[in-house]
Amino acid sequence: MTTSLQAFFDPKSVAIVGVSQDPKKLGYGLARNLINSDYQGAIHFVNPRGGMLFDRHILNDITSIPDPADLAVLLIPAPFVPDAIEECGQRGIKAVVIASGGFREVGGEGIALEEKCLEVAARYDIRLIGPNCIGLLDTHLPIDTTFLPPPGPQPGHVAFVSHSGAICAAVIDWARGQGFGLSRLVSLGNQADITETDVLASVADDKYTRVLTMYLEGLSDGRRFVEEASKVSLEKPIIALKVGRFESGQKAVASHTGALAGAEHAFNAAFRRACVIRAESSEEMFDWARALAWCPLPKGPNVAVLTNAGGPGVTAADALEALGLNMASLQLETTQRLEAILPPAASLGNPVDMLASASPDQYANSLQILLDDPGVDSVLVILPPPPMYTSAGVANAMIPIIQTSDKPVVLALMGERLIQEAVERLRSARIPEYRFPERAASALHVLWQRENSICDKHDKQINAGKVDAKLVKTLLSKAQPGNDGFLSQETVAQIMDAYNIPILSMQLARNAEEAVEIAQKIGFPVVLKLASPDVAHKSDVGGVLVDLSSKSEVEKGFFEILQNVQDARPGAKFMGGHVQRMIPQGQEVIVGAVQDPQFGALVMFGSGGVDVEGLGDVAFALAPIIEDDAEYLINSTWAGKKLTGFRSHAPADKEAVIDVLARLGQLAADFPELAEIEINPLRVMPEGQGVYAVDVRVRMAQ
Amino acid sequence: MTTSLQAFFDPKSVAIVGVSQDPKKLGYGLARNLINSDYQGAIHFVNPRGGMLFDRHILNDITSIPDPADLAVLLIPAPFVPDAIEECGQRGIKAVVIASGGFREVGGEGIALEEKCLEVAARYDIRLIGPNCIGLLDTHLPIDTTFLPPPGPQPGHVAFVSHSGAICAAVIDWARGQGFGLSRLVSLGNQADITETDVLASVADDKYTRVLTMYLEGLSDGRRFVEEASKVSLEKPIIALKVGRFESGQKAVASHTGALAGAEHAFNAAFRRACVIRAESSEEMFDWARALAWCPLPKGPNVAVLTNAGGPGVTAADALEALGLNMASLQLETTQRLEAILPPAASLGNPVDMLASASPDQYANSLQILLDDPGVDSVLVILPPPPMYTSAGVANAMIPIIQTSDKPVVLALMGERLIQEAVERLRSARIPEYRFPERAASALHVLWQRENSICDKHDKQINAGKVDAKLVKTLLSKAQPGNDGFLSQETVAQIMDAYNIPILSMQLARNAEEAVEIAQKIGFPVVLKLASPDVAHKSDVGGVLVDLSSKSEVEKGFFEILQNVQDARPGAKFMGGHVQRMIPQGQEVIVGAVQDPQFGALVMFGSGGVDVEGLGDVAFALAPIIEDDAEYLINSTWAGKKLTGFRSHAPADKEAVIDVLARLGQLAADFPELAEIEINPLRVMPEGQGVYAVDVRVRMAQ
Repeated sequence: MTTSLQAFFDPKSVAIVGVSQDPKKLGYGLARNLINSDYQGAIHFVNPRGGMLFDRHILNDITSIPDPADLAVLLIPAPFVPDAIEECGQRGIKAVVIASGGFREVGGEGIALEEKCLEVAARYDIRLIGPNCIGLLDTHLPIDTTFLPPPGPQPGHVAFVSHSGAICAAVIDWARGQGFGLSRLVSLGNQADITETDVLASVADDKYTRVLTMYLEGLSDGRRFVEEASKVSLEKPIIALKVGRFESGQKAVASHTGALAGAEHAFNAAFRRACVIRAESSEEMFDWARALAWCPLPKGPNVAVLTNAGGPGVTAADALEALGLNMASLQLETTQRLEAILPPAASLGNPVDMLASASPDQYANSLQILLDDPGVDSVLVILPPPPMYTSAGVANAMIPIIQTSDKPVVLALMGERLIQEAVERLRSARIPEYRFPERAASALHVLWQRENSICDKHDKQINAGKVDAKLVKTLLSKAQPGNDGFLSQETVAQIMDAYNIPILSMQLARNAEEAVEIAQKIGFPVVLKLASPDVAHKSDVGGVLVDLSSKSEVEKGFFEILQNVQDARPGAKFMGGHVQRMIPQGQEVIVGAVQDPQFGALVMFGSGGVDVEGLGDVAFALAPIIEDDAEYLINSTWAGKKLTGFRSHAPADKEAVIDVLARLGQLAADFPELAEIEINPLRVMPEGQGVYAVDVRVRMAQ
Repeated sequence: MTTSLQAFFDPKSVAIVGVSQDPKKLGYGLARNLINSDYQGAIHFVNPRGGMLFDRHILNDITSIPDPADLAVLLIPAPFVPDAIEECGQRGIKAVVIASGGFREVGGEGIALEEKCLEVAARYDIRLIGPNCIGLLDTHLPIDTTFLPPPGPQPGHVAFVSHSGAICAAVIDWARGQGFGLSRLVSLGNQADITETDVLASVADDKYTRVLTMYLEGLSDGRRFVEEASKVSLEKPIIALKVGRFESGQKAVASHTGALAGAEHAFNAAFRRACVIRAESSEEMFDWARALAWCPLPKGPNVAVLTNAGGPGVTAADALEALGLNMASLQLETTQRLEAILPPAASLGNPVDMLASASPDQYANSLQILLDDPGVDSVLVILPPPPMYTSAGVANAMIPIIQTSDKPVVLALMGERLIQEAVERLRSARIPEYRFPERAASALHVLWQRENSICDKHDKQINAGKVDAKLVKTLLSKAQPGNDGFLSQETVAQIMDAYNIPILSMQLARNAEEAVEIAQKIGFPVVLKLASPDVAHKSDVGGVLVDLSSKSEVEKGFFEILQNVQDARPGAKFMGGHVQRMIPQGQEVIVGAVQDPQFGALVMFGSGGVDVEGLGDVAFALAPIIEDDAEYLINSTWAGKKLTGFRSHAPADKEAVIDVLARLGQLAADFPELAEIEINPLRVMPEGQGVYAVDVRVRMAQ
């Protein structure tokens, strides 16, 4: 555990400053919860008015707290908080939870007060949780420094870290209702000092915690979170619910990459890198947490479904396949063993449908047979209220089998009140049950996802090879970007060269004669492209002519482009035309990079062209990319799948594309001042023959 | 009500054939449920062994049933069922539910038995429900002819029609657990006679039923379902859960349209046409059913969120916006009124965050203020367990306001046991509450979806204009498709002409000289395309050359194509080249049609080209299309959005595209023997300048 946070998670004493004798006040609730939690350290109550509470004397001030003085929880009006911290400092207290509200969240003076708290805390080397938070609790230590309505959570294996205080009461109540316990809960409030990233390792470093769940409204420092979460998730799964999905307000972007990038892509890229499992709803988060806390992980994606009803069996199979799991093929021996114990009309394929008459013994024995099949990695059992038996009877028969298996088994107990007893038995036995087959399928999927993601990805960096960052630094210091921040084509070409990105060289011709001259030098046929700082998408205005194969065609083409741009964009500055070698046809993709405000450099890959934004066949990864990212960028896009060969097209040079992604990512990470970099198209030759960056645009941050 | 089904839904008497005195037998459960249901008609029990049951004499046979004899429920071994139906016929019974299993679902002799039942029933003009079903119940009549474990459902407003019998017990139990009642429940079993489509109108024709829910495993007759469901959904919303999503097995398809089409697209197109709301899970279906049964519909998409906690407020806003609803902009007056009753730190924007201290009165008054705002169409209230009040207190304060409002209000009661009392009160008051903000948002969305879909779409057919079906009939009768079923380009051109689809005429040149001759006739530049019955995708093999602008280029091109096809597909039959006029550039889209086994002709529209399958920017509609479909096809694809203008591109001739969609759909509907029709590309000129079908392929069913 980080030493500086030890006093929060294992304090020798807790002082509650601002206790109240009035049961309607939060200061009463706080004292009550701490007493009821059975906390074993010393408890001190402080209130200037003194008196007694729960058979204890209330001290008049912080300075009179006797030894040991370890953790203080402040629940006093905001204006008094800085002085209280000062007193804590004088008393030698190093850990303070500010439960009070009235700080940054109310704006104005609140912001100043919060700054003041930080300043005082820094002076005394005090760490702060809050303000405006619920505090924290640990069911095993045990300790409860919250003022939440009782009862507190039952002891368990799921830890919860939250940016929202209000949701904590609901989470404790959900946990109780869904029959699982919590190990630790931390409400972080305004995060004036300690953030979600700071507490990650401390919360995980607890033998009772098997799963970390997080309710995030944003991240204080995206890259540090990725680093910390990557370490923690090697040991224990992290599930995060990130709220605040829709961003309002316009971004200033000038590239497709910039237009397509956004906080959601960045968060997904970061969570993927850190092996954080992203839940879409609180419900999903806790459905998954139960499964991860209670089940062994499956060794493969093959699931058997055991049911007494056809319809829900099909629903489960649908849901499993939609999630990318496989319906296991049962071995002949398995089918024969099932046949011996099930009625003739039973369906022995997968789903195994035992029919409505299935008895507790048939459920238990069939489950055992399925678990014995080496081709079955996990089992989903479906149980609507059986017409002839009780659900609890069926559950009881299966529990010992599930508990002794090293394969995960989850149940869909369909119904509500008729299955309540079965639900209670399974919960006591720590077997995850859900009301609907789809949710049970989703739980199995997350177990498989976890099994797949336990690996030290971070050893697998992709080497960007030889890059000359020093040269780029010099180039950028001398660069004179246009008003919109775009660098000249000449500078762009030099930057690409420095990072070994094969750009198709391009020379500026200021007039038709120069264009002909350049074309003769580089050889026909050539491509001629409008050079204008005012036109972002040249092909839109008829600014790109291809396959010009003679002097006269180049000459004619130059004037055609001039005419086109004058027609389409009267007043646009005409600098001439860029002449480029005409290269062989090939698959064209887009490769780009942007700077995300929370996570820094991101790389994008996908189907390029003018429709890139509309079709949205793109994927993002944190830059610089690692091997896992390259695989994801290629496999999750149609553009990437096509690189590996498509109908009669030969496989294209995928490796060269990955090289460019690695180098472009390195460039963006090395130079955060490069706001947007976009290669569209990157033309990909057949396998082993490389790629050409045909059109590259680079915009500097203003 | 359809006369022939009246005896099922309002029988004067019910005879249970196969009752049992043994409480462990289903025949006992059936008798018990009917007695307990408080059914007011005559009840007859039949079993050859005779005896007494529930103080009634058990009759020895069906023929001794006294008047009135209306509905018989058979629960006897399958082999005896045909004779029992015969006896029912002799006794004058016209409605029979076969609850017994052992028919088509077990294969072999079961199939023959089921045929036999149908044959006997037909002879006596008897209608059958089942076999292999649970039967039906009506909580208002009341009647219960099921053998499900008690208790039966509470009376309510949601009807449930199911292909799966096993799920019925779970549904009744869910309904009880979620606090809503059912009006009717029908389990259809094997559907030997009566299908889901047959019962639709009868089930809906009940003053207590406000919402129909359906659990479907397929459809007996897709088009008839669409027709019936369209009528019913004008009056009452239908929500369907369709299971069996993933199709196994390969389809024989030769076009992009065929490869992209599938049962899912067809079902979605059909449900859209019939205004059937499709649920993705049972949970969603009943979440939505409660809202539709209990709430007024919103007049617009603008939602206000009222919360005592920031985090869940953001979650709700995210979920609402993701579903396409708007966060309402509050009027100044609203904000001022809220300001007057809420603490200074409260957030008066939308979500309105009253802070954790919010009292029952503040909840109630703020809700009233929001409902008073004319810019607010519905309200989502969030309530985690409040630290200082009970949830029930808050619920009580709001209930009268919600009940008297003509705007829908749904609640997210976050928690489980601490909120249980509030939950019970809201359920009694018929106000939908959910445990999670996302689910509450989804309920509001479905209300808005319903408000939007109540319209008689079917008046808005698109006239395909003058088409010559007779000519096509003649052409098809004489057509000599290749081995793969494709029609010759000449026949295709004649068919397109007959349906007024502007195809770019194409003439076959068997050798280079003919190619030059044709080119000179139609004028340079031209396009030259490989003519080979063995090559489906010509451009893949270098079989398409464009912009040939001289005699020599055409000549050279002819040999180039010959060479290309020999290289790429040795042995492919070379028929020569098709010469086509070179037309102006334009947006290229794909338009296709296929025949779905359940729903008949489907039309597809989207982004064409070679990547069409990978990018999947396509949408499907039932053919012939109606106005609503045209709008959907255009608005739900990027290809369609682009037609309306994109960056510097002028708007394209969208109307001409819709014309082609209408005509192609008409053609496919008129000639089901046309298995696949595909125009790829259809080149779209600027507004008012029409379209050209550049490449058209038509395959006849084998």
